[in-house]
Amino acid sequence: MLPEIPRCYQRLEFLGDAVLDYVVTAHLYFKYPGLTPGLITDLRSASVNNECYAQSAVKAGLHKHILHASQDLQRQICSTVEDFEKLNLDSTFGWEAETTFPKVLGDVIESLGGAIFVDSGFDKDTTFQCIRPLLEPLVTPQTLKLHPVRELTELCDQKGYIKKKDVVSRENGIAYITVEVEANGVVHTSTCSGRDKLIAKKVASKNVLKSLKGCPSNATTEQ
Amino acid sequence: MLPEIPRCYQRLEFLGDAVLDYVVTAHLYFKYPGLTPGLITDLRSASVNNECYAQSAVKAGLHKHILHASQDLQRQICSTVEDFEKLNLDSTFGWEAETTFPKVLGDVIESLGGAIFVDSGFDKDTTFQCIRPLLEPLVTPQTLKLHPVRELTELCDQKGYIKKKDVVSRENGIAYITVEVEANGVVHTSTCSGRDKLIAKKVASKNVLKSLKGCPSNATTEQ
Repeated sequence: MLPEIPRCYQRLEFLGDAVLDYVVTAHLYFKYPGLTPGLITDLRSASVNNECYAQSAVKAGLHKHILHASQDLQRQICSTVEDFEKLNLDSTFGWEAETTFPKVLGDVIESLGGAIFVDSGFDKDTTFQCIRPLLEPLVTPQTLKLHPVRELTELCDQKGYIKKKDVVSRENGIAYITVEVEANGVVHTSTCSGRDKLIAKKVASKNVLKSLKGCPSNATTEQ
Repeated sequence: MLPEIPRCYQRLEFLGDAVLDYVVTAHLYFKYPGLTPGLITDLRSASVNNECYAQSAVKAGLHKHILHASQDLQRQICSTVEDFEKLNLDSTFGWEAETTFPKVLGDVIESLGGAIFVDSGFDKDTTFQCIRPLLEPLVTPQTLKLHPVRELTELCDQKGYIKKKDVVSRENGIAYITVEVEANGVVHTSTCSGRDKLIAKKVASKNVLKSLKGCPSNATTEQ
């Protein structure tokens, strides 16, 4: 391997990050001329982020081709791919995955985007056409789901439910988060743990949402 | 005013956000071929953010032309412009401003970027040429400053200083943050307040940095 390759890969990732954001934004802007700015921004948030790119990379099997020499990273990638296969996801956007993706998985898509952009003589249309199959199915207003943390906050605001302050603790490098909502006198709560606080919060919020949406027999409900 | 203008303005902002990020990224990528990915990413962070755009908008006097009917927003804009004039900044990038910018100021630059992009038949080069004078002087590796919070963390890591956990409190909607570092047995501390927690943390970190960099007579130093 040539000595400049690692540097190039990261510089391409830097470029690809901005290029992909831009081509997906332009795609959404022109495809949905009637959409409100709020909704079109939600569409972008759900489709331009490291989680989506990481899921796209795994779906396409690109994780098998990453050159590195870190056993720790290898373990992380394997465990991510396992979690991912359990979920058997159809989509590559949204917030379904309940796992932390090693940053390198998303970086692969970004650097590919950067490489195609340079290789095509800086042609944004070619870049989008080439990278789009990896990102399919793209999010649409019909398939858009809000991030569970945001969905829960909005639901509480709308319905006048009382959202307690999250309780966070940490033990042996594992974060524990308890999300609690009181709705019409009933307390809905979920405690989740994870290496990553944000993932734990996401999953706990998903559980509370499920419970609030009429599954009172869920294990997450307490009266 | 036509009823669709507010919607258009925000949709153009959505587009302009991605376009500006992209044209500045491409500019940095091609202008500094030898720069490490870390440094080039820092350059982008320092030049593509709402604070820079807001500063550019105020420098060009664009805040005088925003059409709105909110007295509260008007007060915020006036107080921002006053703070800004006190600082007498040469640059429109970086982290010097010790004030929170109303989001609308940065949005003006983004929507202008979007409008020029649409108006030029989606020509990124024209967009960059037109918007660049507003953003000048652009950041360079020589003028780059790290965000004070990050600079303080890196300094502590390098020198083995002990950075205490920030103490945060809130009273009447004002956030108070105490940043404290123990360096060679001397405690350097600063407490700042602000409507915005992040600004308070930034200013407190700047004070502690100043104190650590050999101004032991500063008011921020306690032994």
